[in-house]
Amino acid sequence: MQPFTSAFGIVARRYGGLKGFYSAPFLRSNTLLFSRSFLRHFALISTPSAAAMSTVSPPDVTIASINPKHLQEDLNANSDFFPFDEILYCNSGNPHSLGQPPVTFFREVLALCSHPSILNRDETHVLFSFTEVAVRSKQILSQWMRVWWRQMMLLFLKQFEDAMARAGEILDLFPARATGAYSNGQGTEGLCEAIASGIASRDGFPCNVDDILLTDGASSAVRMMMQLLIMSEKDGIMCPFPLCPLYSASIALQGGFLVPYYLDETSGWSIDIPELRKQLEDAQSQGITVKALVVINPGNPTGQVLTEENQRRIVEFCKEKSLVILADEVYQDNIYAEDKKFNSFKKISRSMGYCGKDLSLVSFHSVLKGFYGECGKRGGFMEITGFSADAIAQCRKLAIVNYCCPNISGQILASLIMNPPKSGDKSYESFFVE
Amino acid sequence: MQPFTSAFGIVARRYGGLKGFYSAPFLRSNTLLFSRSFLRHFALISTPSAAAMSTVSPPDVTIASINPKHLQEDLNANSDFFPFDEILYCNSGNPHSLGQPPVTFFREVLALCSHPSILNRDETHVLFSFTEVAVRSKQILSQWMRVWWRQMMLLFLKQFEDAMARAGEILDLFPARATGAYSNGQGTEGLCEAIASGIASRDGFPCNVDDILLTDGASSAVRMMMQLLIMSEKDGIMCPFPLCPLYSASIALQGGFLVPYYLDETSGWSIDIPELRKQLEDAQSQGITVKALVVINPGNPTGQVLTEENQRRIVEFCKEKSLVILADEVYQDNIYAEDKKFNSFKKISRSMGYCGKDLSLVSFHSVLKGFYGECGKRGGFMEITGFSADAIAQCRKLAIVNYCCPNISGQILASLIMNPPKSGDKSYESFFVE
Repeated sequence: MQPFTSAFGIVARRYGGLKGFYSAPFLRSNTLLFSRSFLRHFALISTPSAAAMSTVSPPDVTIASINPKHLQEDLNANSDFFPFDEILYCNSGNPHSLGQPPVTFFREVLALCSHPSILNRDETHVLFSFTEVAVRSKQILSQWMRVWWRQMMLLFLKQFEDAMARAGEILDLFPARATGAYSNGQGTEGLCEAIASGIASRDGFPCNVDDILLTDGASSAVRMMMQLLIMSEKDGIMCPFPLCPLYSASIALQGGFLVPYYLDETSGWSIDIPELRKQLEDAQSQGITVKALVVINPGNPTGQVLTEENQRRIVEFCKEKSLVILADEVYQDNIYAEDKKFNSFKKISRSMGYCGKDLSLVSFHSVLKGFYGECGKRGGFMEITGFSADAIAQCRKLAIVNYCCPNISGQILASLIMNPPKSGDKSYESFFVE
Repeated sequence: MQPFTSAFGIVARRYGGLKGFYSAPFLRSNTLLFSRSFLRHFALISTPSAAAMSTVSPPDVTIASINPKHLQEDLNANSDFFPFDEILYCNSGNPHSLGQPPVTFFREVLALCSHPSILNRDETHVLFSFTEVAVRSKQILSQWMRVWWRQMMLLFLKQFEDAMARAGEILDLFPARATGAYSNGQGTEGLCEAIASGIASRDGFPCNVDDILLTDGASSAVRMMMQLLIMSEKDGIMCPFPLCPLYSASIALQGGFLVPYYLDETSGWSIDIPELRKQLEDAQSQGITVKALVVINPGNPTGQVLTEENQRRIVEFCKEKSLVILADEVYQDNIYAEDKKFNSFKKISRSMGYCGKDLSLVSFHSVLKGFYGECGKRGGFMEITGFSADAIAQCRKLAIVNYCCPNISGQILASLIMNPPKSGDKSYESFFVE
């Protein structure tokens, strides 16, 4: 479990060990991150309907209480007031900001694709060949220096050759090898194919390349889906609480209605079907047309990994109620518990016998999360199944209007996370260690 | 003048020379790109109101007639039917797709920022130092090879050192040098400062860093402005015809009203103030609240460069009618006529004595256009002046909801186009030649 994926996730610690954690909205209470009042609080700020459900007055949220810089000032001024001495930023949704280095292989490929002429430059090749010549020459290097040099260069070249090969393959997917040109709105065809192949290999079920739509990160994809699904303030989207603010913001922006459902803390933040049914019926009784259910697995901010049985019941519920499943699966590579395993909703639904035509399912993935955490690179994709050809066409048109084409560096990274170095590849060892 | 900046720009040629050009919507007519019927046609497909103004029935637009792939098939099947033998794609808005290589300095910096550890790697430094040692050693290289090698390496290193220095400066702007982390929604602070400084140096008037908002290309910025300005179908935006489809699409997406105004072909596609006045009054008489005027300078797709006098009159008109000026200035570096010069609307309005408070002006710029043409990198920015602090705050909030933060590679490129190598820099010579 990874409890700090919330955008607001900060932890306050006393030197020498963790003494307790604080969620930003509750800076002055001793409440744990996912307390009941936290849930009520989020419900309150997210939608009027949720607010109406809450009967307990939540603590005030102001710039002063929500901004960690203010907390730092308060801490400096009144250190005795707080049960900790230091604020530790630990937002696992933005790991590079905390000093986590990027994955070398990914960045090597990206650097080579950013400046493809390196691959073809005479001097680069001469440099490498020359190094070999020099290493073999007794005239310039002492024995120890030759050994050291050879080892270092071999290690460097071994990894780098792999990155060069991959970069070459990727560049060949672009007309004129031009990563500076527009791709089509769906994303570069060959990269979509690489992603489809990665999904098929992950799930053990086929993936159609036409179902892939590359985006500038998952947030861009989620916003686009909300644009497509929400026509009026009577259109509702079910979202899990504790809530990832991307969803409340995207629904609010489109003028839709957020229908909350509450995760069950006592059973490891699982999704309780009677709770889904109750919230759906409540919303319908208010005249809301519920169109889709957002399910975040692994959870954000709760960090749970849903069981297969729970996932199957969710699929059945959505099928019964004709809801689109919006499966936020961006943390699929962040599984830390040995007895847990990620299963995509696509895999679960296919294993239940549903094919693409009888269940509308969108799976979101992103280069921003996972161990790679490339938040600044804005790469991601959706796999859209069970939509009509017309709906898919509208979706692609919307992508073009929204952003012409997703940024190419993000597209390349998206293809890499779905096809990382494999056992036996020259770069696998260092990739695995990282 | 550059007539083919339209997204639809294709040209059909007979071997041995240009025989005529075709615009995609008129594949089967012999109409020139910017004929009157072309204008009517675009008016018709853009807004119902414009359609109502048109009395001539336009040619049918179908997938078969608008898609150059279909044209190619038709051409293959019925070559005698067409007055040309070959379709030549010449969209100057996407030059890398036509084989134009990227600017080396930009891509070197980008590659180094994509994989910053290259800057610090022992082996990189050793490699370079070692090269020098080897060059000095008579034992390994023949005389001619040493001379050639030295020349080549010096050239390479001279340029590359400059790129390494710039990459180092840029990386220092990021906490933990992490280009993989989120920046804030406005864009990385130091890059905004670099852009503000570039604008100030271009215009000769100060630029406030808080007025800069980095975006994923200009299309993303335009869409965001439309989101902010359009509240209902009665809100109108004035747009020049011939039209860049980004505007019609963005206005349609927000459910606003496109108010067309027609450029005057006889005076080099200038903007005629009586025409602006007429179209504004027509729209107002239909109950439309006209909020802003889009002006594209240099023109897209018309390629004209507005005269200073014309720009001053446009500023006066917008001031008088309280219209926001949305100045699309993405082609500011594409001036090919010797007697033409680009002047930003910011510079013109400041030289007229308007300060930031008395005129609402948004200037769009992008790494996608210009001689750099980095369409796939999705970098751009807006300079927003004359908006209230509340409006700016809403704008920033919208940016975060729309895309969290603009992609970092695009941000870096945006800072580079506003601060390219200068005369005297080691990389200037090769940059200038390119």
